Amino acid sequence: MKSYQLSYKLGLKNDFKRIKEGKTELLVPSVSLSEKVPPKNPAFFNPSAKWNRDVSVLIYKTYASFSKNARTFADSICGVGARGLRTAVEVPKIDTVYLNDLNPIAIELAKESAKLNEIENKCVFDINEVCKFLNFEQRDVRKFDIVDLDPFGSPSPYVDCVLRSVNNHGLISITATDTAVLCGVYPNVCYRKYYGFPIRTDYCNEIGIRLLVSFIALNASRFDLSVIPYFCHNNLHYMRVYLKVVFGNSLANSVSSKIGHLKHCRNCNHRKVENLKEHNVLCEICNSKCILAGPLWIENLFDFEFVKETLNVLEKDEYLSSSETNYKRLLRMMQICKNELAYPFYFETDSIASKAKKSSISLDKVINSLIENGFKASKTIMNDKGFKTNASSNDIINALYK
Amino acid sequence: MKSYQLSYKLGLKNDFKRIKEGKTELLVPSVSLSEKVPPKNPAFFNPSAKWNRDVSVLIYKTYASFSKNARTFADSICGVGARGLRTAVEVPKIDTVYLNDLNPIAIELAKESAKLNEIENKCVFDINEVCKFLNFEQRDVRKFDIVDLDPFGSPSPYVDCVLRSVNNHGLISITATDTAVLCGVYPNVCYRKYYGFPIRTDYCNEIGIRLLVSFIALNASRFDLSVIPYFCHNNLHYMRVYLKVVFGNSLANSVSSKIGHLKHCRNCNHRKVENLKEHNVLCEICNSKCILAGPLWIENLFDFEFVKETLNVLEKDEYLSSSETNYKRLLRMMQICKNELAYPFYFETDSIASKAKKSSISLDKVINSLIENGFKASKTIMNDKGFKTNASSNDIINALYK
Repeated sequence: MKSYQLSYKLGLKNDFKRIKEGKTELLVPSVSLSEKVPPKNPAFFNPSAKWNRDVSVLIYKTYASFSKNARTFADSICGVGARGLRTAVEVPKIDTVYLNDLNPIAIELAKESAKLNEIENKCVFDINEVCKFLNFEQRDVRKFDIVDLDPFGSPSPYVDCVLRSVNNHGLISITATDTAVLCGVYPNVCYRKYYGFPIRTDYCNEIGIRLLVSFIALNASRFDLSVIPYFCHNNLHYMRVYLKVVFGNSLANSVSSKIGHLKHCRNCNHRKVENLKEHNVLCEICNSKCILAGPLWIENLFDFEFVKETLNVLEKDEYLSSSETNYKRLLRMMQICKNELAYPFYFETDSIASKAKKSSISLDKVINSLIENGFKASKTIMNDKGFKTNASSNDIINALYK
Repeated sequence: MKSYQLSYKLGLKNDFKRIKEGKTELLVPSVSLSEKVPPKNPAFFNPSAKWNRDVSVLIYKTYASFSKNARTFADSICGVGARGLRTAVEVPKIDTVYLNDLNPIAIELAKESAKLNEIENKCVFDINEVCKFLNFEQRDVRKFDIVDLDPFGSPSPYVDCVLRSVNNHGLISITATDTAVLCGVYPNVCYRKYYGFPIRTDYCNEIGIRLLVSFIALNASRFDLSVIPYFCHNNLHYMRVYLKVVFGNSLANSVSSKIGHLKHCRNCNHRKVENLKEHNVLCEICNSKCILAGPLWIENLFDFEFVKETLNVLEKDEYLSSSETNYKRLLRMMQICKNELAYPFYFETDSIASKAKKSSISLDKVINSLIENGFKASKTIMNDKGFKTNASSNDIINALYK
């Protein structure tokens, strides 16, 4: 179908373009390709979220490679359907993709794109409010194997609807774009949306992801559900978490042991997981008064078996991505992730240098120096200049600069 | 209609009885009047919750006396409809009562009772899962002025549905019957259901109510809503809170200032509101290691203007209750409540005596002694032997026994 025909069909004076992302044909509003910030009208499509969708396809494909139940996928706020359609085309094990959006033009575009990819028989479309779509579209309970939630702004008001809609051992993927809130710019807003306090630090993005995960875990636990992170990542504009959901109240009872606080010293850069039962506001190292982040997730953000499996999936299909650049980027990210130490915070080379009043040292050199000094150290996917280690901030400065 | 006719109509071998509670006729299963624990089948009716319903009628009537929007009431898990029907009959300002239960026999009984009271035209019936009833029964949004939630066990999984269903400046009433969880017997279960830790103390019921309120407040805040308690009470078998719901994100942002922790010393009985930013695990008085409850609601549990208004409503109608005994009990409770100090915990005469290794002193004498010694002191509706005061546990023992 040519673009002017579609414009005519939709009764609008908008132009649409046909593009290819990954292995998937997509009809998108021309304006979304030309404007700096893609507009909501006539329908939302964010071309710069291509990387985000490449990661999604990798994660869903990996999940489908071992899960017995990876047949249905719900793209609950799908816009023009980019993620859902790519999943339908590029993750063949999934046999039904549900695409929902409140905007009928977006759904009309998604339908046309489904035809272009010859996957109409795999797709079910809905025009509905997200919670109605997820929980109440049908009189009987309808649950999905994979559910994605990617709203404008905070996912906080919809997280319960996602959790109510997923099968046992299913996968949920949730995006938060209110990164300023989660990174500590508006702590009171963060508390009311994510039930924990953030702090503005050089590793605030990891704290933000941990707040998002604990918030989802707390919503799950009141439904007798537990979440277990498969993978989490972020960039400037969003944080995104992929979580396994497991049914059962005895596992859910353990949620309190997976949520805690981080203590941070603004004076000497010291940071540690803090047990409130033993809490001391003073820094163990320099005796300054510390600040506290949390409650937040203090367990792993990655399932290392799962991460290894993503590398197997990548090795088998070098076209699993929208470009060679992104394929290499996926490989690099997952290789770093595979070796990332499980400490719940990282240090950053520039901050350490600034604290030591010395010039910055390259990440590889920092990690080697720490290992030579008998510490554990690894890169982190959270920050290009970040590293995880069991060395304290003082240990690090001593190892690097003294 | 005679009871055998109804049994015949329902196609069951059950007997039903017609009783009167307050000003309202109710058809109830005979077995619910004879068994110690009223059974769920053929339909649930708890005769011993009469007091609870008397309080409800008083609160709803008071709310209706000043609110411009007190026209609709939703009894979301109504059983045979006792609370909803009493509200329809005894709170005339409410013009529509929605009664919902999953059990069709319960709804059939509620319908027959509505006829007996000649209020069929005020009643709308539904047989549905509670969240579907509250949020999705109609395609368009339907919100209520007053919503009641009184489930078997914990209200935790349904609280979001209640909050989604209430009008701005509306009233929600929520019952929790999992009092062992909220009072500290199962702290990990409490954390996953109410997002805070309880502690087993002589004032654990007040801590439980404060955990319940903060949990509801946190659910509200992610929808840009705030809750403000009108009234809360409890007995052995339940805790019950009546909260005003206000729309708007700027008020919602202040939720973090209304939620905090309580620090309790098992050694000397000292207790205080603890700011985590200044937290010290050691007791200010005896230097023992303390325990921590929370996060929980540290603001008022009562709106004192509202409580005064309940007394006005009671004065105007001496039949506002199911019995003279309960009328007097309501009066007494609200008079105590009107004068109750707003500290977030109370002391108990027996515990103080036991700590002092002396014999117990009557509540009135305790309060008089404290006031004579220059402290503030009041009774509390939370406990017949309880008192609130700005005196510390040591001050109290000194004032009473030294």
